[in-house]
Amino acid sequence: MRAGIIGVTGYGGMELFRLLSAHTEITEVVLYSSSKAGIELSEEIQHLYHVHDQKLRSLKQLSSDGLDIVFSSAPSGVSSEFLPSLVDENLKIIDLAGDFRIKDADTYRAWYKKEPPPQSLVNQAVYGLTEWKREEVQKGKLIANPGCYPTAALIGILPLLKEKAIHPSSLVIDAKSGISGAGATPSKGTHFSQVNDSLGIYKINQHQHIPEIEQSIQFCADVDTKITFNTHLVPMTRGIMTTMYAELTDSVTPRSVKEIFESYYDSEYFVRVHREKANLFTKQVYGSNFCDVTFAVDERTNRITVISCIDNLLKGAAGQAVQNMNVMFGMEETKGLKSSPMFP
Amino acid sequence: MRAGIIGVTGYGGMELFRLLSAHTEITEVVLYSSSKAGIELSEEIQHLYHVHDQKLRSLKQLSSDGLDIVFSSAPSGVSSEFLPSLVDENLKIIDLAGDFRIKDADTYRAWYKKEPPPQSLVNQAVYGLTEWKREEVQKGKLIANPGCYPTAALIGILPLLKEKAIHPSSLVIDAKSGISGAGATPSKGTHFSQVNDSLGIYKINQHQHIPEIEQSIQFCADVDTKITFNTHLVPMTRGIMTTMYAELTDSVTPRSVKEIFESYYDSEYFVRVHREKANLFTKQVYGSNFCDVTFAVDERTNRITVISCIDNLLKGAAGQAVQNMNVMFGMEETKGLKSSPMFP
Amino acid sequence: MRAGIIGVTGYGGMELFRLLSAHTEITEVVLYSSSKAGIELSEEIQHLYHVHDQKLRSLKQLSSDGLDIVFSSAPSGVSSEFLPSLVDENLKIIDLAGDFRIKDADTYRAWYKKEPPPQSLVNQAVYGLTEWKREEVQKGKLIANPGCYPTAALIGILPLLKEKAIHPSSLVIDAKSGISGAGATPSKGTHFSQVNDSLGIYKINQHQHIPEIEQSIQFCADVDTKITFNTHLVPMTRGIMTTMYAELTDSVTPRSVKEIFESYYDSEYFVRVHREKANLFTKQVYGSNFCDVTFAVDERTNRITVISCIDNLLKGAAGQAVQNMNVMFGMEETKGLKSSPMFP
Amino acid sequence: MRAGIIGVTGYGGMELFRLLSAHTEITEVVLYSSSKAGIELSEEIQHLYHVHDQKLRSLKQLSSDGLDIVFSSAPSGVSSEFLPSLVDENLKIIDLAGDFRIKDADTYRAWYKKEPPPQSLVNQAVYGLTEWKREEVQKGKLIANPGCYPTAALIGILPLLKEKAIHPSSLVIDAKSGISGAGATPSKGTHFSQVNDSLGIYKINQHQHIPEIEQSIQFCADVDTKITFNTHLVPMTRGIMTTMYAELTDSVTPRSVKEIFESYYDSEYFVRVHREKANLFTKQVYGSNFCDVTFAVDERTNRITVISCIDNLLKGAAGQAVQNMNVMFGMEETKGLKSSPMFP
Repeated sequence: MRAGIIGVTGYGGMELFRLLSAHTEITEVVLYSSSKAGIELSEEIQHLYHVHDQKLRSLKQLSSDGLDIVFSSAPSGVSSEFLPSLVDENLKIIDLAGDFRIKDADTYRAWYKKEPPPQSLVNQAVYGLTEWKREEVQKGKLIANPGCYPTAALIGILPLLKEKAIHPSSLVIDAKSGISGAGATPSKGTHFSQVNDSLGIYKINQHQHIPEIEQSIQFCADVDTKITFNTHLVPMTRGIMTTMYAELTDSVTPRSVKEIFESYYDSEYFVRVHREKANLFTKQVYGSNFCDVTFAVDERTNRITVISCIDNLLKGAAGQAVQNMNVMFGMEETKGLKSSPMFP
Repeated sequence: MRAGIIGVTGYGGMELFRLLSAHTEITEVVLYSSSKAGIELSEEIQHLYHVHDQKLRSLKQLSSDGLDIVFSSAPSGVSSEFLPSLVDENLKIIDLAGDFRIKDADTYRAWYKKEPPPQSLVNQAVYGLTEWKREEVQKGKLIANPGCYPTAALIGILPLLKEKAIHPSSLVIDAKSGISGAGATPSKGTHFSQVNDSLGIYKINQHQHIPEIEQSIQFCADVDTKITFNTHLVPMTRGIMTTMYAELTDSVTPRSVKEIFESYYDSEYFVRVHREKANLFTKQVYGSNFCDVTFAVDERTNRITVISCIDNLLKGAAGQAVQNMNVMFGMEETKGLKSSPMFP
Repeated sequence: MRAGIIGVTGYGGMELFRLLSAHTEITEVVLYSSSKAGIELSEEIQHLYHVHDQKLRSLKQLSSDGLDIVFSSAPSGVSSEFLPSLVDENLKIIDLAGDFRIKDADTYRAWYKKEPPPQSLVNQAVYGLTEWKREEVQKGKLIANPGCYPTAALIGILPLLKEKAIHPSSLVIDAKSGISGAGATPSKGTHFSQVNDSLGIYKINQHQHIPEIEQSIQFCADVDTKITFNTHLVPMTRGIMTTMYAELTDSVTPRSVKEIFESYYDSEYFVRVHREKANLFTKQVYGSNFCDVTFAVDERTNRITVISCIDNLLKGAAGQAVQNMNVMFGMEETKGLKSSPMFP
Repeated sequence: MRAGIIGVTGYGGMELFRLLSAHTEITEVVLYSSSKAGIELSEEIQHLYHVHDQKLRSLKQLSSDGLDIVFSSAPSGVSSEFLPSLVDENLKIIDLAGDFRIKDADTYRAWYKKEPPPQSLVNQAVYGLTEWKREEVQKGKLIANPGCYPTAALIGILPLLKEKAIHPSSLVIDAKSGISGAGATPSKGTHFSQVNDSLGIYKINQHQHIPEIEQSIQFCADVDTKITFNTHLVPMTRGIMTTMYAELTDSVTPRSVKEIFESYYDSEYFVRVHREKANLFTKQVYGSNFCDVTFAVDERTNRITVISCIDNLLKGAAGQAVQNMNVMFGMEETKGLKSSPMFP
């Protein structure tokens, strides 16, 4: 199998390349760039010096390169420009940007502040939250790989929503992310001296992952609701933790909550359900495709707290993309993704 | 004025010493230690070498040293042992530990897992949340200085509770702290390689600051409620941010919320109310006694998000203690506390 | 006294403003900007919200504003453009950039890769390494404030060079700096995810502080030599440590080295000489104007190691600038600079 | 093949387990602990939850467990207690501690301040600096795996010493390490708030890796010399950089230096020689077994600077141990070690 990557100089692209290079079913990984074609990879990415010496190719060469699959790790708004022309080719596509995730055009416009891709392509795209969309992914040709925050939040909260264990309208999601989630392009908000030793909140009530989460709550748990969702930047490179709060419906106990989670995830390799009130920390999933989950039932307030954490560049981006590729091609779902978290 | 500090080798104590040494009304700062009496200060605390060369004195010498005020920065459980004997002396006391904060003995036992100090002393103690208890502090003899999380949370949420702008039972407080909040004693949970580049949640639903916040909501806003409160450790040294969520009562707009905050805090030097949805970050208060506040009204969910941040060692500990001292002695409240935040 | 600052939105400028605002002899601090005139300060610098609400003024207004002193914290190459016109005014100037430091024009061209300011002005400028140039600073009108690395290195090594305790040609300086030294402008090399949890070396053998150190060794210790000097970026915001190695001349013992240091620095408030082999760390000077020094004599190799550390934004920039101002105006040299280091 | 690990709860042990678990020739990894036998692995090591659920076994069981190889990652002084009894067993041993590295007993006593293991065992032990000792490692039964600092320093400097390109007595090694090098046991010197955002120097001229480096310079380059070597703690989890300085002998040019390095390392997969003056940073080898090297010839001082960096837990510990195992058993040397560095 031959795979292509568009956007290898971004952080998602780098991780994709690391994973695909070690994937035993991939014989070759070809790299494309719109702006840096012709450049030697290791000139741009020093850590790959002598490991992967190859030149970045032009996007125009892509269709004639005989790929089986292409991953696009270009930013939102960019992939929607060139991906449409590739859809008719005989290759599968996994897009890591947000362009094809939102089904409703007006919702897309409202949160992304730009025009969506053609509706027919959006309709065709499968939202690749693997554990919840496995069958569709298997048949899919164009996968809209989920956002990092939605992946963590949805895996943690969907079982309780679907089992009607919580009141949907009470759901509050407080999310925290490492700074690599902001990408590889320098800005004041990612300047070391500005953010080191400091915790910040940003895009209050305005993050474009809000409609993505709401849409999946509707599609996966059949619940139509609005959520409150906020995001914080933590002075660390990788990792996302979502702390979620909701009111319990009547009949729930810690034991029954644990049973709900286990019924959904016992056979899922990448979701690790911990005992109630386990002190999770993001580095316990660093470099791995795991999503770790715990919860706490508070009898004083009849509220539940659900906590989930992922590596934003793995399960939140490149890892889940490879997981989706494995599903699309009928390979073992964990192939190339079984390495333990790296700690410390 | 002569001031004493018990526990200068802790982080709160170090900051107390820095502030009091620069305070123009304090002529001498005497240092006490139960375990390290006789030791040269700068042997324990290298950054004070040549700045403050003095020996730590025994606690037994304290009563004969003619102090006007003593600050106790010993850990919870320790100060309740020796502070009672000092209360009858002719000196004022500010305790930075949790021992005298909780009025109800059973509540104290339930959350602190130990016996409270004598009830008569607890009754006598004034909870020193300066902006909300100024008059009591002024007359106080024994101040229970508030905890770091409660200070940030209460300053942010009390105006809305008191004005009945939110439904109390819907209140969720998601708190994040730098690691200095865990003190100067090494442990696995504060070991650099364990917590660096990682975000963790701890004491889920079990933090002893929960009853402290609930008690102040009752005393300051006359509301009897239970809250959901969780705490996270952020890989940074200082800083606390609380992100608080609640359902709005009917009549609230962004403008009216701003007006509520301004009506409470316009004349408060240490509380800075920012415009709606300002992207706060903890380092904007680093090294200062400020509590910064912002908020966001979400019309989609009829919920409000309130964000507050402080330096946990200043407004959350030593800074507020000095502020209380200033009030107790009728000095200008900002004396010794006006230095700008240090950035970056 | 009225002071002006050019470039307050840079990190050196921010610290200058913090220090001057708290300086009891300064009645007003006026802020200038070439590119941001007219803007409200706290729009640019959130941590100063409500502390210092004032507008940035145009550089053109400077000469008519009746200042006694102006600090220029603009980048190298910029200050040489507008400072010449100010020199004839009746005001004193302290320039924090590198433009006026190097006396020899060809050396400047070789290391800075641009044209130097007019030679007459360069000749007039006093290199403001206060402890070693106090008398010249006192009479100076235009001060070239030393670079951060040279300040740390020179204070540590000059006594040994002047006393001929080491062989000059054997001197190797290995320097490490926090990332704020690279300034407030975002770039790939200061992007959080790029540099966090990583140590890098840069400008190997090519740092423009090399000729500055060599020139001062000649002027202060009367030694003409070439040094080897390298610089590393450490994932921390502030702090510089220089570790210096040299061969000892015959007659040196640990005791005699200590005596040399003490003979130079016993009456210097800002230089703290520690016992031999003290484990220095940069945070012990954080937020202060101290330069801490220690050393170790290695009998096995007949070599000495000298270690010095400073806060690059204080003694390495704004702190030393204020120290120079104090000297220039005959004020107590420590005025406005006596606050303890902030730890942790 | 069956492998055992003693000390899996240390950082070296964790990485050994991660590597061996993914090694295709290892069918089982058995874990031993002297103090924690009987405990479930993931109770101690949360990041391995559900990945590797197994109990820690007692050391007594080791000899009857039919292992082919055992890795000891116990601290210095501990392994020398129980390893001797295992040497006669029919299994190979790789010790990651310092006990068996120093051949001369008096030197060991002087630097380690304790008694060495039996001299016969020390004599038998092979110093496992793979690139320089491959043939001995291949025949070895007991490998003393090199220290982290010596690995980085020796790979960088041995070619120049052996080729007599530098004067040995002029060699100065300035080393910097991430804090995981100090191990998993909490202490004041590794307490987050103590070391975060701070760079420290420690054990000045007294580090026990000094004799280890000197011994290898003698054995590998046939040069008897004393070095100056200092170590710094950098606020990052992993990574070592050594910056080395030496005077050049006459005939050296940048080109000839590059040729020397290439002649030694062109066929070494794990040593990556970069162009002259490449800006190395430790994260470019994070999570990999690479040692990256660059250099700079300074014609002004006739001195060379050599820079090398490694991941202290991989090439500096577990990675090199697995590399040695591969050599001992005649497997491909890169097996289980080819994963790219993880960035960012």
